Amino acid sequence: MIICHVSGPTTQHSGPGFSVDAALMPQPDRRLEVSEAAWRVIVREGLDRTSMRAIAQEMGCTTGVVTHYFRNKQELILFALRQVKERLQAAMEQAVESVPGPDRLVVMLAAFLPLDSERQEILRVWLAFLGYAVGRDNLMADHQQSAAQLRTVIIQELEALKAQQILRSDIDPATEANALLALANGLSLDSLIQGQPLSLDQQRLVLQRYVKTLLIQD
Amino acid sequence: MIICHVSGPTTQHSGPGFSVDAALMPQPDRRLEVSEAAWRVIVREGLDRTSMRAIAQEMGCTTGVVTHYFRNKQELILFALRQVKERLQAAMEQAVESVPGPDRLVVMLAAFLPLDSERQEILRVWLAFLGYAVGRDNLMADHQQSAAQLRTVIIQELEALKAQQILRSDIDPATEANALLALANGLSLDSLIQGQPLSLDQQRLVLQRYVKTLLIQD
Repeated sequence: MIICHVSGPTTQHSGPGFSVDAALMPQPDRRLEVSEAAWRVIVREGLDRTSMRAIAQEMGCTTGVVTHYFRNKQELILFALRQVKERLQAAMEQAVESVPGPDRLVVMLAAFLPLDSERQEILRVWLAFLGYAVGRDNLMADHQQSAAQLRTVIIQELEALKAQQILRSDIDPATEANALLALANGLSLDSLIQGQPLSLDQQRLVLQRYVKTLLIQD
Repeated sequence: MIICHVSGPTTQHSGPGFSVDAALMPQPDRRLEVSEAAWRVIVREGLDRTSMRAIAQEMGCTTGVVTHYFRNKQELILFALRQVKERLQAAMEQAVESVPGPDRLVVMLAAFLPLDSERQEILRVWLAFLGYAVGRDNLMADHQQSAAQLRTVIIQELEALKAQQILRSDIDPATEANALLALANGLSLDSLIQGQPLSLDQQRLVLQRYVKTLLIQD
């Protein structure tokens, strides 16, 4: 819970005698809390109706607290968008820990599916951002940069499978990384835009079956 | 080109002596022209910055002309969104004329890819709408309704292939329709969100290869 008065890292605990201890204390990133409040407002109200004021209200704070951490909506949006990417990347990295072989790839891609309430929220926030980026080239470029990082990770994974002679030799990792991310994104979107969406198990199965077609059959 | 004075179907050519001829004359749907102007503004400026005034400006008209056809932005947005769906459905139907067998399915799905400048624009407009629908349940329901219609068409196609014993017997048309639309949507999105997107040929190839995995191999 954020403390609802202006208390940025520079002004906090700066009284004499406390400055050293304060510097040693881990400072929770208050901007994360603001960003999470913003997510909730975006999911509930839509990105275009998400104002600095609405976010402050969500937090039970004054607008001044929000503007203390983010100069304007554009700055907050970029921060929150990067949070979406970091959460997804962390989920992906955590998911693959100690998963070996071609299953790793399925598990990595499944991290993009709306597996839990956080990822369902992330999906909505991501989609709101994407729609907002139409007509705003700088925001779209930010999306492309995030996508490029994820693509690099998938390419590395495919290349490792190729080196282990698990991946079919005719598969081009660069092309296939796009196709895999397209399928994972599309399946995830499906849960929002289809009246009769696939269940999570069905989504996982589709990914699994697709990855299987890329492998050398024994 | 729209005539830039208030001239709805009810008031047009209604002078004495002209009324019968006017009724027989094909009336171009002026709302389509307004909607197309709206598309251009959305792609250029973003949906949240697309006002009735900006659309009027795009058409070189007064705002009154736009409000003559659409009471407010919400009404215009719903009309333009349905246009997106109709264009895609028409493209799909036109594409499959006289294409037989399993190739039909690939050709149908390829109709969603950003094949030409119109479909690139449609993709952007669709994405802007989708993002805008986050936090607006009635708009999201409209997306789901459009998606359901497309899904029905794909299910019919898969069932026809199954009846012809071309589709593998273990394939469930309902599940597979979602997966196919997810892949097509994802590939189409790829062209916007990936810094290094697949070429159109690569996108088509991915669809082709995927559909092939659903078929009985001879």
